[in-house]
Amino acid sequence: MDAGLFTANNVWMMLATALVFFMHTGFAFLEIGLTRQKNTINILFKNIFIITGGLLLYYAFGFNLMYPGFEDGDMGLLKFAGFGIAAPEGGMTVEYASGGYTWWTDFLFQGMFAATAATIVSGAVAERIKIGSFMIFTVIYVGLVYPIVGAWKWGGGFLDSWGFYDFAGSTLVHSVGGWAALVAIALLGARIGKFGEDGKPKAIPGHSIPMATAGVLILWLGWFGFNGGSVLSADPELTSLVLVTTSLAAAAGGFGAMILSTILYKNLDLTMFLNGILGGLVGITAGADLMSPNEAVVIGFLAGIIIVLGVALIDKLKLDDPVGAVTVHLICGIWGTLAVGIFGAKAGGDQFLTQLYGVLIVGAFCVLASGIILGVLKATLGLRVSKEEELEGLDIHEHGMDAYPDFTND
Amino acid sequence: MDAGLFTANNVWMMLATALVFFMHTGFAFLEIGLTRQKNTINILFKNIFIITGGLLLYYAFGFNLMYPGFEDGDMGLLKFAGFGIAAPEGGMTVEYASGGYTWWTDFLFQGMFAATAATIVSGAVAERIKIGSFMIFTVIYVGLVYPIVGAWKWGGGFLDSWGFYDFAGSTLVHSVGGWAALVAIALLGARIGKFGEDGKPKAIPGHSIPMATAGVLILWLGWFGFNGGSVLSADPELTSLVLVTTSLAAAAGGFGAMILSTILYKNLDLTMFLNGILGGLVGITAGADLMSPNEAVVIGFLAGIIIVLGVALIDKLKLDDPVGAVTVHLICGIWGTLAVGIFGAKAGGDQFLTQLYGVLIVGAFCVLASGIILGVLKATLGLRVSKEEELEGLDIHEHGMDAYPDFTND
Amino acid sequence: MDAGLFTANNVWMMLATALVFFMHTGFAFLEIGLTRQKNTINILFKNIFIITGGLLLYYAFGFNLMYPGFEDGDMGLLKFAGFGIAAPEGGMTVEYASGGYTWWTDFLFQGMFAATAATIVSGAVAERIKIGSFMIFTVIYVGLVYPIVGAWKWGGGFLDSWGFYDFAGSTLVHSVGGWAALVAIALLGARIGKFGEDGKPKAIPGHSIPMATAGVLILWLGWFGFNGGSVLSADPELTSLVLVTTSLAAAAGGFGAMILSTILYKNLDLTMFLNGILGGLVGITAGADLMSPNEAVVIGFLAGIIIVLGVALIDKLKLDDPVGAVTVHLICGIWGTLAVGIFGAKAGGDQFLTQLYGVLIVGAFCVLASGIILGVLKATLGLRVSKEEELEGLDIHEHGMDAYPDFTND
Repeated sequence: MDAGLFTANNVWMMLATALVFFMHTGFAFLEIGLTRQKNTINILFKNIFIITGGLLLYYAFGFNLMYPGFEDGDMGLLKFAGFGIAAPEGGMTVEYASGGYTWWTDFLFQGMFAATAATIVSGAVAERIKIGSFMIFTVIYVGLVYPIVGAWKWGGGFLDSWGFYDFAGSTLVHSVGGWAALVAIALLGARIGKFGEDGKPKAIPGHSIPMATAGVLILWLGWFGFNGGSVLSADPELTSLVLVTTSLAAAAGGFGAMILSTILYKNLDLTMFLNGILGGLVGITAGADLMSPNEAVVIGFLAGIIIVLGVALIDKLKLDDPVGAVTVHLICGIWGTLAVGIFGAKAGGDQFLTQLYGVLIVGAFCVLASGIILGVLKATLGLRVSKEEELEGLDIHEHGMDAYPDFTND
Repeated sequence: MDAGLFTANNVWMMLATALVFFMHTGFAFLEIGLTRQKNTINILFKNIFIITGGLLLYYAFGFNLMYPGFEDGDMGLLKFAGFGIAAPEGGMTVEYASGGYTWWTDFLFQGMFAATAATIVSGAVAERIKIGSFMIFTVIYVGLVYPIVGAWKWGGGFLDSWGFYDFAGSTLVHSVGGWAALVAIALLGARIGKFGEDGKPKAIPGHSIPMATAGVLILWLGWFGFNGGSVLSADPELTSLVLVTTSLAAAAGGFGAMILSTILYKNLDLTMFLNGILGGLVGITAGADLMSPNEAVVIGFLAGIIIVLGVALIDKLKLDDPVGAVTVHLICGIWGTLAVGIFGAKAGGDQFLTQLYGVLIVGAFCVLASGIILGVLKATLGLRVSKEEELEGLDIHEHGMDAYPDFTND
Repeated sequence: MDAGLFTANNVWMMLATALVFFMHTGFAFLEIGLTRQKNTINILFKNIFIITGGLLLYYAFGFNLMYPGFEDGDMGLLKFAGFGIAAPEGGMTVEYASGGYTWWTDFLFQGMFAATAATIVSGAVAERIKIGSFMIFTVIYVGLVYPIVGAWKWGGGFLDSWGFYDFAGSTLVHSVGGWAALVAIALLGARIGKFGEDGKPKAIPGHSIPMATAGVLILWLGWFGFNGGSVLSADPELTSLVLVTTSLAAAAGGFGAMILSTILYKNLDLTMFLNGILGGLVGITAGADLMSPNEAVVIGFLAGIIIVLGVALIDKLKLDDPVGAVTVHLICGIWGTLAVGIFGAKAGGDQFLTQLYGVLIVGAFCVLASGIILGVLKATLGLRVSKEEELEGLDIHEHGMDAYPDFTND
C-alpha cells in the first residue's frame, strides 16, 4: 500500500474519531433539553465526567481488555493485554490494521465509543439519581462491562467466531447502554409527578427543545463518524455506502415516527420526530455496510414506528425514561441487530438465529452486570436523591449552582 | 489515478457532505434565534421536516431528475432517470466522476444541497404560515422545482450549454430558495405588529441572539463544505483557493454591513454584522473558484453593503421577512451570479449577459412555480394561521408544546 | 511525493483549518455562558469582530509579517513581505511546504490561529470594557503584536534559532493572549460587585452553563485541528499521536481540577471541571507531538491542579477575570511551555532554560505592547464603560438590543 492511501485512510479515521467525540455534545444537549432546568448542571457534570473518565479508563485498561489479541481456539471470554497504552511494533505502519489507520488512531476511535454506553444510561436516570452512585457505576460499566462485551465480538471472541454481525454497535454499544438504562430505571423508580394518583403517565416537558433538536442533529452528524469510521478504512465504496444508508435510515426513522404519532395522537410532535431519527440511526448501525439504500429506508422507517410504540410501552410498564433512551438505544438496537438477520441475505442463511443469540447473551450479561452494580449501590450508598432534593433540583443540592441564574433567580 | 488519490478525493467529498448537513443546524439556530420563542417548536419542526423529507424525496426521484444524463443536442429541459437510487456500473470506481468521488457520495452531497432551498423559505415565512401548507409546498419545491432548475445547469441542460456559470449555487440554490421566499411573503402578508398604523416598520426582536450568532458561525463552517465540496474533488490548489475566497468574502461581507449600518443607524448592530457575513458567503458562491482573494474581498464587501440596503428596501416595500432571507439569499445570490460576469474575466467576454439571462430565466421559472403552488394552497387550504393562533404562538396551537416551559409557564 | 499523499495532506490541513475556525464558536459560547445575560450581545459582537477583522488583517499584512522568509543569519526581529496575499511560484505544488499543504491552505490555517489571541482577551475584559477601545486594541494586537511574536519562532526568527520549542502555541498563541488579558484586567479593574466591602471575592454566576459547557466541548473538538493541524501534514504517526496526547491531557486536566476543587471546596463544581479541561488542552499544546500518552496525562493532570490554584490566586490578587482566561491561557500556557523542557528529553539537555527564556521574552514584549496600547487607550478614549452602563448592561447601551427579549422584557 502506498503512503497516499495509508494517509488518506488515517485522515478519515481521525476525523471519524472527532465526529464521534462531537456526539457527546449531542448527547449532552439532548439530555438537558428534554429534562427540567433545575437538573441541568447535574446532567452536564455527569456527561463531562463520562467523557473524561471514560477516556482515561479506556487508556488505563479498557482498550487492552477489549482488544486483547485472542488467538484462534481461544474461547475469548476474558483476556487482558496490560495497563496503559504502548504502541506495538509496527503499530504506526501500513502493517498494522491493513493500512487503515495507526495504532494511536485505533485507541482514540475506540475510546470515543467506550464512553457512549454510559452516556445512554445518563439520560434515562436523569433528575433523580445520586451523582456519587452514578459515577461509581460509570467507572465499572465503562471500564469493565463495555470492553468485556466488546471483546466477545470486536476483540475476536466467541460471538465473532459464531458469525454474529454487528457492524458499528447496535448491540455492542447501544444495547449495552440500553440494558443498563432499563435496569437502572426499574431500580430507581419514576420521578415524582411522572405518574398521577390514577397511575396515568404525565408528560414532564423538557426545558429547552431547541437544545434537544440541536442535540439530535449533532448526533446525526456524529453518526457519519460512528458508522463511517467503523469501516476501519476510507474505502471509497464502503464508506460512502455507509453514509448513504445511515442518512436514509435517519430520515426514514424520523418520518415513520412523525407519521405514526400524528395518526395516533393527532399532534405534530417534534420530540417523536427527533427520537424517530435517533431510532433510525441506531437501527441501521448493525448493518449499515450490508444494506442497500432501499433496505436502509425500510429498516429506518420501522425503527421510527418502533419508537412511537416503544415509548407508549415504557409508559405502560410504569417506567420513567425522561429522554426515551431505552426505546431508542435498547429496543431499536435489538431491532437493528435482528434486521441484519432479516435483510442481510449476504450475511448467510441462519443469520437470524445467530443475531438473536447474540442479542440474548449480551442482554443477559448486561442485565446481570448492571443489576449487581446498581443493586449493591442501592443497598449501600443509595441510588436516589432525597425527595426534597428532587423537588428543588439536583443543581442546587449537589453542585451549589444554577444553570440559568439570570432567568431563574429573579 | 491511484487508489490514494481517489480515496483522498472521496474523503474530502464525504466530509464536505457532513459539513453541508451541519448547515441545517445553522439554519435552524438562525431562524429560531431571530424569531419569537412562541414559534420555536414550529420552526424546528419545519426544519426537521425539510431535512428528512428533502433527503427522502431526493432519494425517491430528485437526484434522477436533476442528473438525468442529458446527451449532446438535448435541449435539456426535462428528463428523468427513474425512481430510487441504484449505482450505475463503475459508479464506485475511478471511472465515475474522474475519480473525484463515488456515486453514493455524489447522491448524498447533492441530497444535502437539495433541502437547502426550502430551508431558505422557511425562515422568511416564519411565525405565520400554516404548517400543513408549508409541508406540501416543501415537498413540491424540493422534489420537483429545485431538481428541474438544477438540471438546466448542473445536470448539463441548456443553461450549461450557454456557458452560464454558477460554481456552487448562488443562483441554483440560494436564488431558487430566495425567489420562493419573496413570493411567499408577498402572498402571506406581514406579521401582526410588523407595520404600525402609520405604515412604519417596527422591529420584532428575535428571542435568542446567541443562537442566531451560533447559527451564522455554523453556516460559515458549513460553507467550507458547500463551496469546498463543489470542486467535486480534493484538488489541492482549487479547494484551498475556494476556502480562502469563501472565508475572505464572509469576513468582508460582515465588515461591509457593520460599517454601513453603523454609519446609517449610529448603532453597532450585531444582526446586520451577521447577515453581512451570510451575504458575503452567498455572494462568493457563484464564483468562489474563479476569484482572486482581492476580488473575493470586494465581492464580499459589496454584498455586505447590499445587505443593509436590501433590508431597508424590503421594509420599504412593506414586506416582512423575519430573518432577512430574501436579502441574503435572493439579492446577494443575484449579485454573486452577476459578479462572475464582472470579475470573472476568465469566464469570457460576454459573460455578464449570460449570467443575467440565467438569473432572469431561473427567476421567472421560480416565481411562476412558487406562485402557482402557493397560490393554489392559499385558495384551498389557506396559507396563514388564524389571528388568534398568530398572537398566542404556533407552538401551542399546532404542536401542543412549549419550547421553554420552565421559563415561560411560571 | 505522489498526488495522493499531497492531496491527503492538504485535505487534513483544510479540515484542521475548519476545526480551528469552529473554535471561535466555542470561545463565544464559553464567554457568554460564564457572564451575565445583559452583556451577551456585546461579547458576541466583539467575537464576531475578532473573527472577521482578524482574518482581514491577517490577509492585509499579518501573514506576511509573520512569515517574512528570514534567511540564515537574520536576527529575525522584523521583516515584512508586503501587503495582501499572492501565492509564490510553486505555492500550490508539492514543492511548497514539503507537500504538506498549499500556500492558500497555509494562509487560512494560520489566519484562523491569529484571531485566537484577541479572543482570549475578550473573555477576560468582558462586562466592562468600552467596545470602541477593545476594537482598536484588537486591530493592533492581532494585526501587529501576534504576527511579530509568531515570526520569532514560527517565522524562523531568533527564538527558533535558539531551539525554543512550541509545537502549536502554548506560548505563541495562548500566552500572547493571556499576557494581554492580565494587563487589561489590571488596568480595567474589577466589575462592580466582584469584591465585597470586606475585599472578599464574590461569584458572579454566568447566565448559561449549558452554553459554557458546549463551548468547552467545541473547543476540545477544535483542538483536534489546532494541534493536529500543527503537524503541518497528515503524517499518520505524528497526527494520531498528537490527537491522543491532546485528548488525554484534556481528560486528565478536567479530572485534576475536579478532584482538587472537590477536596478544597467540598462541591462538585462544573465550571472548574470545564476549565480544567481547557487547562489540560493549553498545557499539552507546546509539546503535543513530543510527549508519550503517559506524559500527556501527567501534564494535563497538573494543568488541572494549576487551574484550581490559579483561579484562587487571581482572586487573591483582587483581579477580576470572568472566564478564567488568565489562568487557562497564560498560566497553563507557561506550564505547557516549561513542561517541554521537563518531559521532552528528546528536545535536548538544556531545553528547560531555553523554554524559560522564551516564556520571559515573549512575556516581556506582550506586557509592554499591551501595556502601551491599553494605556494610551485608557488615557484617551477610556477603557471602561460608565457605572450606569455597567449596571444596566452593555447590550442596551452599546447595541440597543437585548439578547433574550422574550425572557427579560416581561
